[in-house]
Amino acid sequence: MTQAVVLLSGGLDSSTALAQTIERGCEIVALTFSYGQRHRKELGSAKKIADHYGVQRHITVDLDIGKHINSSLTQPTMHIPTGADEQSDMSSIPSTYVPARNIVFMSVAAAIAESVGADRVVIAVNSVDFSDYPDCTPRFIDAYQKMLEVGTRGGVDGRAVLIDAPLLEMSKAEIVREAVRLGVPLELTWSCYAGGDKACGVCDSCRLRLKGFGEAGVDDPIEYERRG
Amino acid sequence: MTQAVVLLSGGLDSSTALAQTIERGCEIVALTFSYGQRHRKELGSAKKIADHYGVQRHITVDLDIGKHINSSLTQPTMHIPTGADEQSDMSSIPSTYVPARNIVFMSVAAAIAESVGADRVVIAVNSVDFSDYPDCTPRFIDAYQKMLEVGTRGGVDGRAVLIDAPLLEMSKAEIVREAVRLGVPLELTWSCYAGGDKACGVCDSCRLRLKGFGEAGVDDPIEYERRG
Repeated sequence: MTQAVVLLSGGLDSSTALAQTIERGCEIVALTFSYGQRHRKELGSAKKIADHYGVQRHITVDLDIGKHINSSLTQPTMHIPTGADEQSDMSSIPSTYVPARNIVFMSVAAAIAESVGADRVVIAVNSVDFSDYPDCTPRFIDAYQKMLEVGTRGGVDGRAVLIDAPLLEMSKAEIVREAVRLGVPLELTWSCYAGGDKACGVCDSCRLRLKGFGEAGVDDPIEYERRG
Repeated sequence: MTQAVVLLSGGLDSSTALAQTIERGCEIVALTFSYGQRHRKELGSAKKIADHYGVQRHITVDLDIGKHINSSLTQPTMHIPTGADEQSDMSSIPSTYVPARNIVFMSVAAAIAESVGADRVVIAVNSVDFSDYPDCTPRFIDAYQKMLEVGTRGGVDGRAVLIDAPLLEMSKAEIVREAVRLGVPLELTWSCYAGGDKACGVCDSCRLRLKGFGEAGVDDPIEYERRG
C-alpha cells in the first residue's frame, strides 16, 4: 500500500488534498506545523480533520521560528492585509508571505517520508487564483523535485520522494466543488489568517475562500465576523 | 555590510566556515539545530564557538522531529557504525545519514536569511573525503540554489539567498590547515557522533577528523576515549 505524508494545515485546500489522497487508497501520515502562526486555531482544525478521517498517525511538529520570520502571519505587530488595503490587490507578494515556509514544510515532510518509507509528500498549494506566493507555483514544485532527486538517498537510488501537488492547477471554486464531491467536512476547516474565534471574512484568505464558495454555488458552513 | 546566516553545529567544519565568513567581513547570524541528535554535546560546542567569536545573534532552533527520523544519529536503538563494521567502509550511504537533514537545515536558514535580509546561507558541507551523504555534494547545492531562485521572494526579485558552501571542495586535512590558519579554537569543537563525554575516536566522524588532523600534521586538542 502506498504511503503518503500529507501536509495538513486544517484549511480547505489541505483537507481536500487529504480526502483525495485517502480516496486514492494511500496510507496517511498527516503532518501539521506549529510555527508561531497567529492563526493557531488552524491547529485545532487540523486535528479535527485528521480525527474525522481516522488518521492514525498525525504528527504536529513544533518549529519555534515564528519570531525570527518576517511575515504578518507571525508578527503580531504587523497588519494582515484586507480588501480595504491597497497592497492587498493580489498583484504582488503580500505581507502574509512567510519566507520559505513551504520549502521548510516540504523539507521536514520529505525527511519524514524518507524515514517511514512513504513514496510521496502531498502539498495543497494552488497557483490559479492566487499565484503571488513564489512557493506555490508549478516551476517551484518542479525545482524542488529536482533538488530531492539529487539530494536524498531515495533520489540517488532512483526513487526520490514525489512532491504531489494535486490542487496546483485548480481554481478555488474547483477545489470547493472537489471538497463537496469528496464529502470533506467543510465546517471543520479553518482558513482565516487572523487570530479570532470566528473567521474575519476580510483577510486575503477569507476573501479568496468566500469567492471560491460563491463561484461554486456552495454555502460556506463556517461562521464569519462579516462576509467582506 | 553583508549579512550571513551560518549553520553552526559546533564541529570542526562549521566552526571553520564561521571563521572564514567572519574573516570575509560578514555580519553573522549563527543557526544551530536541536533535532534529537544523540550527540547533543555539539550544542554546547556551538554555543562556545559562537561566544568565542562574539556572535551577537545565535539562534538555536528546537526541531522535535528526531523520533520520526530513521537514522542512527537520532535512534538510540540503532548502532553507530565504527571502523570495525563492514558497513562503515564509506563506500555507500551509512546509517548515520539523516534523511533530508541538510535540506531541512538550509530551508530554515533560508527562511531566516530572507527575513533578516541576509544575502547568504553558509553551510560547511564537504564532499571530498566523505562523499556518500547525497546532501553534501556540489550537484545538490546547485539544485537547492535553483530551487531558491524560483521559490522565494528574493529569487523572484533576482536576488535569491545564496547557498555558500566554502568547504565543498576541501579535504579534511585542508580544512584542518584552514582552521589553524584562522585560529579556530579547535579545543572547543565537537565532531563525535556518539553521545559520550569524550569523543569516542571510532565513529566515522571521529575517524575522519583524526585522519584529517594526521594528514595535516596537526595535533587534535580534544580528548578521545581512544584513537581508533
